[in-house]
Amino acid sequence: MALAYDPLFITSDKSSTEISLASINLTQDDLKRIAAYKAVEFVQSGMVLGLGTGSTAKHAVDRIGELLRQGKLENIVGIPTSKKTQEQALSLGIPLSDLDSHPVIDLSIDGADEVDPDLNLVKGRGGSLLREKMIEGASKKFVVIVDESKMVKHIGGSRLALPVEIVPFCWRFTAEKLRGLLEGYGCEANLRLGEKGKPFVTDNGNYIVDLVNVEKDMGDLGLVSDAILRLPGVVEHGMFLDMASTVIIAGELGVKIKNKH
Amino acid sequence: MALAYDPLFITSDKSSTEISLASINLTQDDLKRIAAYKAVEFVQSGMVLGLGTGSTAKHAVDRIGELLRQGKLENIVGIPTSKKTQEQALSLGIPLSDLDSHPVIDLSIDGADEVDPDLNLVKGRGGSLLREKMIEGASKKFVVIVDESKMVKHIGGSRLALPVEIVPFCWRFTAEKLRGLLEGYGCEANLRLGEKGKPFVTDNGNYIVDLVNVEKDMGDLGLVSDAILRLPGVVEHGMFLDMASTVIIAGELGVKIKNKH
Repeated sequence: MALAYDPLFITSDKSSTEISLASINLTQDDLKRIAAYKAVEFVQSGMVLGLGTGSTAKHAVDRIGELLRQGKLENIVGIPTSKKTQEQALSLGIPLSDLDSHPVIDLSIDGADEVDPDLNLVKGRGGSLLREKMIEGASKKFVVIVDESKMVKHIGGSRLALPVEIVPFCWRFTAEKLRGLLEGYGCEANLRLGEKGKPFVTDNGNYIVDLVNVEKDMGDLGLVSDAILRLPGVVEHGMFLDMASTVIIAGELGVKIKNKH
Repeated sequence: MALAYDPLFITSDKSSTEISLASINLTQDDLKRIAAYKAVEFVQSGMVLGLGTGSTAKHAVDRIGELLRQGKLENIVGIPTSKKTQEQALSLGIPLSDLDSHPVIDLSIDGADEVDPDLNLVKGRGGSLLREKMIEGASKKFVVIVDESKMVKHIGGSRLALPVEIVPFCWRFTAEKLRGLLEGYGCEANLRLGEKGKPFVTDNGNYIVDLVNVEKDMGDLGLVSDAILRLPGVVEHGMFLDMASTVIIAGELGVKIKNKH
């Protein structure tokens, strides 16, 4: 559907709830688009931009393409976080490069699957967590865009997936080690499946194990992160700790912007 | 060359230098074979065995095959740490399985590129560090076999490679991060090349960055390990910390066995 309003009209003091959208009947996709458009307000001509992956980030990439076409932005270099985003950006005419040529990125914009009160994230339900972490970790500013359903009290709080990218070699062994590691938090470890019931394969040729039903607060996430990374079959996990500088949350009551303290 | 003696005659009290071999003119390969044969004395019928990779481990796998043929060993299940070792073991008629079917391994035997006084290792100059770490980390006992040239005062002391397996995606970026991380220790980061000057590719489809000329003692290796593993493009590194239970060192003056305290 077309947007019933121009989200660029929303003003922000970067700390409080803004314009009420309660009277407009918004879908979840509308909320994602509102957050995405708001994030693109941070983009300035000449920037090197990390381009996220997923249904929310897609709106931001679309908007950047639109502003380039309109001449409102110039000299943008995009660094895509997945092959899918690369294709989307190419189709929009956004000039692209990579981390090797641009090891420092001005601004990255991406969605997230969970956001906790300290702005720690879960990402990777779309499967691009490794490239996202490389690119967003190299960014001076990382703006996260979500609808309000993604806000959780603690990481794992949605009881949906905490994804871990692992090497295919003996994946059952690694999945079992992951399950054992987080057993105390009520977690299960499931291999992610793709088309025709075959294992989902990441852009890097790896598998994803989804840790689901993390029932309890895991406490010190830095310790959990290191313990997961120490398992030899693990390539990367979907916890993005202390990486987001700003989170834009679109809800039925308006758009909220939270900045890292 | 054929061995000029039967290394099984060497007896051991597991702590001290043994029979002098100084009068026999031994090559480095002879020393590797002596250490390997000594390690195979730990093998008992019925064991699940991790089979290492490289020029020293190859002798151990050969010896296990020989003892099976002679009927001196029975009911062995081998878990190979590389495709190369898998082929060797198959050609010798050693029954094989994998970590998924045997998540607990009785004994692994493998070589190492460096051994420090605390029995921490550098491995992976042969390129199989990830599978080796998975398998040897799942072993109740891990016997390391080296010739005396591999003993170092501190990890990196040989100033040869400390290998790190990384994803191919933007490898220059990751190599530069690794170099920056260990800059204070005088380290360089080189992409390992294979045939025709193309990047060497691991069994897992990844690249290897060799950290060379680590001039200084890196201090707390656990901290260095975690810092390396936190880099998003890193899959695994070649430091095997606190994993070896026994190291068998063959030198011109004899065979020495060091056990973990």
